[in-house]
Amino acid sequence: MENGVHLVLGGARSGKSKFAEDLVVAAGGGTYIATGRAWDDEMVERINHHKQRRGSLWATIEEPLDLCAVLSRLDHDSEGPVLVDCLTLWLTNLMINEDNIDQEIDQLCDLLPRLALPVLLVSNEVGFGIVPENAMARAFRDHAGRLHQRIAALASRVTLVVAGIPMAVK
Amino acid sequence: MENGVHLVLGGARSGKSKFAEDLVVAAGGGTYIATGRAWDDEMVERINHHKQRRGSLWATIEEPLDLCAVLSRLDHDSEGPVLVDCLTLWLTNLMINEDNIDQEIDQLCDLLPRLALPVLLVSNEVGFGIVPENAMARAFRDHAGRLHQRIAALASRVTLVVAGIPMAVK
Amino acid sequence: MENGVHLVLGGARSGKSKFAEDLVVAAGGGTYIATGRAWDDEMVERINHHKQRRGSLWATIEEPLDLCAVLSRLDHDSEGPVLVDCLTLWLTNLMINEDNIDQEIDQLCDLLPRLALPVLLVSNEVGFGIVPENAMARAFRDHAGRLHQRIAALASRVTLVVAGIPMAVK
Repeated sequence: MENGVHLVLGGARSGKSKFAEDLVVAAGGGTYIATGRAWDDEMVERINHHKQRRGSLWATIEEPLDLCAVLSRLDHDSEGPVLVDCLTLWLTNLMINEDNIDQEIDQLCDLLPRLALPVLLVSNEVGFGIVPENAMARAFRDHAGRLHQRIAALASRVTLVVAGIPMAVK
Repeated sequence: MENGVHLVLGGARSGKSKFAEDLVVAAGGGTYIATGRAWDDEMVERINHHKQRRGSLWATIEEPLDLCAVLSRLDHDSEGPVLVDCLTLWLTNLMINEDNIDQEIDQLCDLLPRLALPVLLVSNEVGFGIVPENAMARAFRDHAGRLHQRIAALASRVTLVVAGIPMAVK
Repeated sequence: MENGVHLVLGGARSGKSKFAEDLVVAAGGGTYIATGRAWDDEMVERINHHKQRRGSLWATIEEPLDLCAVLSRLDHDSEGPVLVDCLTLWLTNLMINEDNIDQEIDQLCDLLPRLALPVLLVSNEVGFGIVPENAMARAFRDHAGRLHQRIAALASRVTLVVAGIPMAVK
């Protein structure tokens, strides 16, 4: 797997996580960073799926907020690729935690180009619908859009997954 | 028209049905399967549009639920292409009918690769917005995403229609 | 910059306006038509951003409704490219004003192919989400989809901006 950042965008149930996971498996495995919280049933299932394979293909880390600390440590300690699943839940956690989102995005975007590790970042594309009536949803959509633009600008690859099929964006 | 399955995805009013219809017309006509119910005014208009041309280019069948039965029969009786418009309304009808969606999807995906007929399946891409607050809408979105992934995997072609223009996905 | 119409579609915060603006700046500047009303804070910010650069790269015109009059006049008086930001707000204004949308769309689509000016039209792609529960939102989505299809058909270029990166549609 080439070095650098690969942003994998997709809609809900688009197969974006599966696509990213398959790339890591094809490269011989790596580290799975789950940003989801325990209350997300599907994330629990995904974490268990990766944990069961731990020792062979996957190391699994659960980190809802401090992605930068985990990525820095992994960059120091390991060589294999890292899969972050997903930025959307990370943003959600930051908002719930009332963190300074712009600052968190700056910090992540400062760090990413300095990593030697190949990093795959999975995220939901959420901006192609009608303006949400819910103010929190509008704010989330704005943050996600800005985050994706920032990361895509520094990424070596951007992929949009549609119905499980990757479309090359960059 | 080549054999096999062609999945035509698009947003609301994206021109996806028109794109699929034009392919069938260019191939000399075929069978139009309308999955919409009579309460959908636009579907009534579309069915009438196809019925008026019946005998020349289109045979029209209305089937809200049992797509597999209709496709199997057509595969036995006819040669021309079949256009299903659309999978989104089919899924909606199955949910209203409280059918077992996973089982229905399995059945359709088992059948499709065995058909000799060219089949065009039109469906709405609905997963690129904010998570809906309505639980039924979330469930629908999940079903649609999974269905599209399954069909795209077995399809020979997948097209995303944007503003009436086809983008090749597969 | 080549003549003709360039439709620039994108999601919320996708970088679509920035992409279109960069094209005009690279061509030496042009006219910015802001369709947003004063109550849209972000639009005020954008208009100010363009006004500050007026005299060097941008002339700025605020026109919420009568796009055709402005475009016709510019076509007569100027040579540089015109950037309309954005069609989505124009449609919103027409709906609030209870104008005849179909007639307005017809008028715009009659005019566009007759202009000698290069015209960039920015618009939100809003049709890739779940059917909105709000009737006004559904109507808006239908109008936007039809408008995009009409303009894409006559455009020489259509671009879909994803995370700030342009994907060529046409």
